[in-house]
Amino acid sequence: MLIVQKYGGTSVGSIERIQAVAKRVEKAVMRGDRVVVVVSAMSGETNKLIDMATRVSKTPAAREMDMLLSSGERVTCALTAIALKELGLEAIALTGRQAGIVTDSTHTKARIEEIPSEPVTKHIKEGKIVVVAGFQGATRNGEVTTLGRGGSDLTAVAIAGAIKADLCEIYTDVDGVYTTDPRVEEKARKLDRVSYDEMLELASLGAKVLQNRSVELAKKLQVKVVTRSSFNENEGTLITSEEECMEKPIVSGIALDKNQARCSLIGVADRPGIAAEIFETLASTAINVDMIVQTVGQDGKTNMDFTVPSTELEQAKRALSGFANAQEFDDQVCKVSIVGVGMKSHSGVAARMFSSLAKENINILMISTSEIKISVVIARKYGELAVRILHAAYELDK
Amino acid sequence: MLIVQKYGGTSVGSIERIQAVAKRVEKAVMRGDRVVVVVSAMSGETNKLIDMATRVSKTPAAREMDMLLSSGERVTCALTAIALKELGLEAIALTGRQAGIVTDSTHTKARIEEIPSEPVTKHIKEGKIVVVAGFQGATRNGEVTTLGRGGSDLTAVAIAGAIKADLCEIYTDVDGVYTTDPRVEEKARKLDRVSYDEMLELASLGAKVLQNRSVELAKKLQVKVVTRSSFNENEGTLITSEEECMEKPIVSGIALDKNQARCSLIGVADRPGIAAEIFETLASTAINVDMIVQTVGQDGKTNMDFTVPSTELEQAKRALSGFANAQEFDDQVCKVSIVGVGMKSHSGVAARMFSSLAKENINILMISTSEIKISVVIARKYGELAVRILHAAYELDK
Repeated sequence: MLIVQKYGGTSVGSIERIQAVAKRVEKAVMRGDRVVVVVSAMSGETNKLIDMATRVSKTPAAREMDMLLSSGERVTCALTAIALKELGLEAIALTGRQAGIVTDSTHTKARIEEIPSEPVTKHIKEGKIVVVAGFQGATRNGEVTTLGRGGSDLTAVAIAGAIKADLCEIYTDVDGVYTTDPRVEEKARKLDRVSYDEMLELASLGAKVLQNRSVELAKKLQVKVVTRSSFNENEGTLITSEEECMEKPIVSGIALDKNQARCSLIGVADRPGIAAEIFETLASTAINVDMIVQTVGQDGKTNMDFTVPSTELEQAKRALSGFANAQEFDDQVCKVSIVGVGMKSHSGVAARMFSSLAKENINILMISTSEIKISVVIARKYGELAVRILHAAYELDK
Repeated sequence: MLIVQKYGGTSVGSIERIQAVAKRVEKAVMRGDRVVVVVSAMSGETNKLIDMATRVSKTPAAREMDMLLSSGERVTCALTAIALKELGLEAIALTGRQAGIVTDSTHTKARIEEIPSEPVTKHIKEGKIVVVAGFQGATRNGEVTTLGRGGSDLTAVAIAGAIKADLCEIYTDVDGVYTTDPRVEEKARKLDRVSYDEMLELASLGAKVLQNRSVELAKKLQVKVVTRSSFNENEGTLITSEEECMEKPIVSGIALDKNQARCSLIGVADRPGIAAEIFETLASTAINVDMIVQTVGQDGKTNMDFTVPSTELEQAKRALSGFANAQEFDDQVCKVSIVGVGMKSHSGVAARMFSSLAKENINILMISTSEIKISVVIARKYGELAVRILHAAYELDK
């Protein structure tokens, strides 16, 4: 098999761990696999660099930030290649630029424009293990860029797509994707498989194993991704297309997002374009609106409910001051979502959710549904309880 | 004036010092100068990276070492540019590659092959302060290289030559070049000017302000170099062509090298090629032979004396075991040298040296002379005393 293995910051957080990574790569090579390794900066290193920059300037230039931040991955990339050679393996370290990762010039959050396969495959053909510095690329003019949060995952998925790898393994410090947060429900079970779409819903809802950007790219390039731990030998979770998710359980996982606040605009003039006006106002102040629910009102008025991150509530209040007569804000709420591709073909999934919560006297404040997800907003104090109730209701511990 | 300013590791050793560097650059800009800044890695950083690599492998690959080590200068380069912008100045950070520094592919000690002026001058023309990461370059194939010890000085001199700068200022933690080591002779005086050739002799003899590679390049490119401290406003020492050294003192400085051991081969067969044989043998084991003195012998035999670094004496003994009947080794010696372009046109310089030492009963074991230097080997215990005697004899404190 041709495998891309990506190791995150904690997995390469010390010399000993880098050596452990090399041993793990060696094992794959001994099995007969050809391996491309993508590494992050040592954990803490990127924050240290950001801290230095912000001590120099509150608004450090993005271009120079990229030169600064990209140095962290070069260090682990070089050290990992050295560690592999020390084991007697042929290895070569490549910077993002050397690996052919061409990006646009949006410094600190550049988008990958192109990855020709040749810069990596030519070394694979020579029997070498290619080690690529994650998180970074270069523009066509040779400017250094970085890919933003989760950038190393993106590098791994993009390279896997470019070289048509059989598998892209994302190594972190957790075993994979769980039915829900094990700290909330100890019966949470690791999923063997999950579809790209389910993963997208689970990730945006708080199960932060893999950023949505990477999942979206994997879906687009049809890269099979496995997330697993670099600290044990457990099988991880395979993220793949729906067709390959044989079991198709009704509900795959339950996500809890406690960083939510509810905004209610009561008695908004019910005329065309009013919703656009409201949400453009919020977008212009960079507030991320999540669930939106509009109910039919009376007398040419309507009610509009939506959620924003708790941290952005005060900002939202100011932005909304001009709209509607009555406004209500509640920052003691949370969002609980059930996600599963099986929902599409099963009726009664939502009903079971609502009745399960009702049985425990948990009041639902908002409901929003999509093809593979149902989300409810409830009082924050019931968040964990709701997760446990639903985990049992959909038999996720089985 | 168009000035290249190079700041060493201690000068950029902390955020505060980087900010102080930015202020110093600002001062030059306010004077009306256009400035290119070359920076080393923060002091200790390169050693930290080397240490990590050697923990992973006793023989880390040179190519990967270069990727590793070049990261240190990228950090200071980016931070310095950010600090300059914070002062409201226009600045841009360039890696060695971006600055157009093309090297051969001898990793960890690459030689500069070419520096086109355009990658730097195009930004100068836009009114920007260009900050270049020292110590590094790239091959024509885009491989990252480093320039070896003193590499950042070399970067500065090479860029100054390429862009035809009026001056190349090398900032370190010392004030400049002294008549001798102030720790040995407290009356040591800072030199205002010194010629390239004198500097070459002084540097190789222990006054390590600037490595010989950089002085040689400065001489070749006719770059005027000033070495000075970044911690005060003192004028430094100008290193320039002999013609510009108006004063031409007989003796400019005195160097003491205590890392010397004497090897004597007594009764070597006096036939053509014997010297070549001996020194090829030593060279093949990478021993650096310094002073060589051969005296005429009797009966077709000759005596050969030379010095090697003390640390390489044992190795030299083994390599020499096949030559000569009698061998003598002495690792309790040192070398004292007087250097000055004025010597060329003054007679009696050597005589004064020998008589001054004789007056204090210091026995001279070996003598070697060049056009602008006289070196003697004496017992190590007299090294500091000899320096002080000669410093007074040539009135260097005046």
